This record gives sequence, C-alpha cells and structure tokens, in this order.
Amino acid sequence: MPDTDINFEQVRQAAERIRPIAKRTPVMTSASFDAAAGVAAFFKCENLQKGGAFKIRGASNFIFSMSKEQLAKGVVAHSSGNHAQAVAIAAQFVGAPATVVMPQDAPRSKMEGTRARGASIVTYDRFAGNREGLAEQIAKESGATIVPPYDHPWTIAGQGTAAKELLEEVPDLDALAVCTGGGGLMAGSSIAAKHLRPSIRIFGIEPELASDTYQSFQKGERVRIQIPSTIADGLRSVSPGALTFPIIQRNVEQMLLVSEEEIREMVKFMLLRLKILVEPSGAVAPAAVFFKKLPAGVKRVGVIISGGNVDFETLASL
Amino acid sequence: MPDTDINFEQVRQAAERIRPIAKRTPVMTSASFDAAAGVAAFFKCENLQKGGAFKIRGASNFIFSMSKEQLAKGVVAHSSGNHAQAVAIAAQFVGAPATVVMPQDAPRSKMEGTRARGASIVTYDRFAGNREGLAEQIAKESGATIVPPYDHPWTIAGQGTAAKELLEEVPDLDALAVCTGGGGLMAGSSIAAKHLRPSIRIFGIEPELASDTYQSFQKGERVRIQIPSTIADGLRSVSPGALTFPIIQRNVEQMLLVSEEEIREMVKFMLLRLKILVEPSGAVAPAAVFFKKLPAGVKRVGVIISGGNVDFETLASL
Repeated sequence: MPDTDINFEQVRQAAERIRPIAKRTPVMTSASFDAAAGVAAFFKCENLQKGGAFKIRGASNFIFSMSKEQLAKGVVAHSSGNHAQAVAIAAQFVGAPATVVMPQDAPRSKMEGTRARGASIVTYDRFAGNREGLAEQIAKESGATIVPPYDHPWTIAGQGTAAKELLEEVPDLDALAVCTGGGGLMAGSSIAAKHLRPSIRIFGIEPELASDTYQSFQKGERVRIQIPSTIADGLRSVSPGALTFPIIQRNVEQMLLVSEEEIREMVKFMLLRLKILVEPSGAVAPAAVFFKKLPAGVKRVGVIISGGNVDFETLASL
Repeated sequence: MPDTDINFEQVRQAAERIRPIAKRTPVMTSASFDAAAGVAAFFKCENLQKGGAFKIRGASNFIFSMSKEQLAKGVVAHSSGNHAQAVAIAAQFVGAPATVVMPQDAPRSKMEGTRARGASIVTYDRFAGNREGLAEQIAKESGATIVPPYDHPWTIAGQGTAAKELLEEVPDLDALAVCTGGGGLMAGSSIAAKHLRPSIRIFGIEPELASDTYQSFQKGERVRIQIPSTIADGLRSVSPGALTFPIIQRNVEQMLLVSEEEIREMVKFMLLRLKILVEPSGAVAPAAVFFKKLPAGVKRVGVIISGGNVDFETLASL
C-alpha cells in the first residue's frame, strides 16, 4: 500500500478503534525542565500507557482491523519488547493466540510483561539471528498474521493517535519532538500533528549510536547501519521503514541526535524531578529539547515520552 | 478556632484560591494493581503535584489567605521536607520571604528543592532539637508568620482539595484510603469526600512504626508516641493534631497499619508497574489496599499518593 494512503482520517478512525484498550495518557509539564531548557515543554506520557509504551496504539489498531478468520489463526510479532507486549495485550483482548519473537537479551521486564499476557515467546540471538525470518517462518507454518512493528499503514495510523491527543489538549504548539526507531511513531505523529496544526515544526530524534534515520535523511534515501548498541533498546533499528521514511522526509524539518550520556541524564531527571519512570528510548526526545538541540526559535514544544519499561537493575546502574 | 469551622465550603474556596499554583493532578489506574489487590483502585497522583507532594495545596491556601502586611514580614515553616518546599514555593509565588526549619537528616532532594526556591534553611537535630520552639523563636524575632504543616483550618481546607478533585473525577467510589501523619491531608480529604459522597467509607493509613493516630483512634484521645523511625519520613509525627484528630475521629471508619517491608514493596511496584516515583510516605496508602488491609466489601477505592520526593540513594537502597 503506498504511503499516500495514510492520512489523518485513518488516524481519526484508529483513535475510535483503540478507545476500548488504549488510555488517554496525561500531558505533563515541569517548571524546572522549562527553566533549564528555555522552552515550555508538554510531555505526552506514553510511559503511563497500557503496556508501558505507545506501542499498544499501533498494535491494537492493527489487530482490531483484522478479520475474525485471520484472528482465529493468531498473530506473530518480532520486537525488542514494547511492541511484543502490546501485541500480546491486544491479542488477549480479542482472544487471539499470540507468538512473540524477542531477542534473548531483551529487558526482563518486557519479557515478563509479554508472557504474563498469555503470549508464547520465541527468543533469538540479536547479533546472529534473523528475527524477521523467524517470524515469517512461524507465520507460514501456523497461518498467523505478522503484526508489523512500524512499517504498515494500520500501525502508523495507530501510533499517530498519541500526537492527535496531545495537539487536542495543547493546540498551540510550535514544535513537536519524537524519537525515531523504525519510524512508526515518528511518521504517525507527523501526519496527525501536521493535519491539526499545519504550521508545526517537527523534529525527529535518535541516539548518536543509532542514527539510521538521521543518515538516511541526510542522504535522501534509506541507509542501513550496523546493529546499534545504544542504551535506548527500543531504537536499535538498522534502517527506517519503506513506508515510514517518505512520510518522515515529507514532514520532518530536521533529524537530531543525542548522546548516551544525555539519554542517561534525562532518565534521571525525569525520575527525580517529574517523578515518572522513562525508559532510555523514551528519554531521547526530551533529552534533545533539554540539551538544546532544537533551533532557538522554538518556544512551545510537544514531546512524546515513548515508554517506561525499565528493569530495576538497569535503573540501579544509572 | 474550633474544628466545626472547617467544612466543604472552605475546601471549595481553597480550590479557587490555589488554582494559580497547584496542578490538577492526574488520576491513574493499573490493571495489574487491581488484579493483585482485588479492587478497582484510583490513584490521585500528588507525587506529580508542584513541589512533588500534596503539601502545596495547604501551604498556598494558607499563604494566599494572609494579609499583605503579614506577607511582607515573611513566613516560617518547620517540616521534614515536603511542607517546607511547598511553603518556599508558595512564598516565592507571592514574593514573601520564607525561612524553613528542617531536620539535619531530611532527604537531600527535599533540602535542595527548598533552597532552590529561595528560602533560608535552619537545621536542627531531629532527636534532640525542638523544631516548634525554633520556628517560634524565629517568628517572634522577625515578625514572620508560622505556616502550620497540618493543624490549622486553612491548611486542612487546602489539603482537602486533592480529594475534592478525585471525587469530581471518579464520583462513584465506595472507599478512600489516605496516609496519616499530623492528619492534615486525612482530615481535609475526609471533609471533602464525605460532603461529595456521604456514603463513602474512609480509611486512614499509617506505618506500624508511626502509629500515633492509630493508637489515639483506639484510645479515643490524642496519644503521644516516641519519635518514629519509619522509612516513611513524611509520617514521623508523634501525635495527631488538636484540630485534625476530632475530624478524623468523626469521619474515619478505621485506622490501618502497614509494615516497612510492605511500604518498600509498594514503592517498587509503583515505580516498575505504574511508572511513577512515589516516596515511602506516599506508598503507605496504596500498600494498605494492595496488601488487603481494607474490609473485604470495598470494591472501588480512591487512594491518595501523597508525594514523590525520594533521593536517588534511597531509591537505589531498595
């Protein structure tokens, strides 16, 4: 399906479709963040979302769009964790069997969350295995449907509902900062935000150690990088999606990068000052704002906090 | 002033008065908490309040009720931390000088937060000094007004605004659980909740190691205990207030106790599952619900999360 098929109407329909399962997450502000960053920031707290991340939006929009016949054969997902957990939750909600392909070294909290939702887990070695291949094999053998983590119109439209809610609550933003892995959240957010506020300036944020979309954006075509080792485990994509990338090219003004140290500092700041637990991937967008990577003209910026699934051990290591 | 002077009308007026400074905090729910506790719990997240605790409500209601002449002479507060920080914030908001008397061993985050708000800090030894005496001396010498942490109608009415917001958002609660230190939050919450929902059952919660109100409640008169050493540093009161106690006696069905281990477990659960940072005092009320201290008939319970100011060191020690 060409990307031109993905527009705000699909985001609006997704919002209706996922209402029974996804929470309308709070938008938080912080006087101390604003003072340090020199902007007014509005945090869309998807770390407080069901399943601990925005991923339930795309996963449930996809699964709730499937036919009964497809659902009966089940769903398969491959994911570093949050997408897997979301697929498990959405599948359980409609009574469909779910199988999840996860890297062996995925955070324990994400594995446990997925298993607790009744999904079967198949693990692979992140540096050797081929998760797409494994998922395809499972799908072929069982007749189950693969729920794409980002590169599908249903997934992208679902992820866009977070920005839709944010803009509805705070309409007069002049910028939006969104972390970028495969680009589902980034693409969906940009579609929703540009529709609701055409003048909004959109910035995509990545870790320096996982700059696949940054590099692709500079080059004007999709670049494939080595498997990244950033602490932001949700953003270890090697390439932006075939569907997400053109949307990002069209809507995003600039891709920006943050260091591992900046990500760590932001996790701590969010915890101790805003009192919310944000996973490293979720700290990437606020870190870009806090450490002043955005152009100086930006005054009121929406920031999507993508998730909050962290192990206590990882947290203690900070 | 007799306690009969404190009624819902004062809470309503307080809500208007503090609107420019206090946030309307979100009410959160958690499917995993509910499944474990066997209830539907609605968490009023005062850890996400300005200053990191409900205390800004009472402190700002008090300070905003003072005359210009009184404000010019400044305010004094004695507090284990959250009240002090709240007084500093509210005083800064109206440009009044603030002095705060804090124990030497108050959490560093609370001291820093207070100092960052432009207040002067005077410390004392919690096991030897007399903080009330010290505050009175400062007030006497400077003409400043002491902002009482709990035992004043303005403070109590201000604290009651949290329960007012909770009941407005979730009207059909059959119970309310509130932690109890000096009793300002407990008394104010009970006034607001009983007015908005007369059938509501109200439970006060304390740490086993700081059971001054529990013991007073059993005996029918205010009991004074040894200075408690509970991890819940905001609830180390030695006695309920002269004003707060009769209100508690009238409105509270039962005082309940939680162990130090239960408090610690709840801080961890709130962090890893709800993704919010709750200080030990703030974990006391949800711990009572989670560990099933409430009567079996309770189905829909409002729980006030009183605050979220924790040092990273304290957190790591869990």
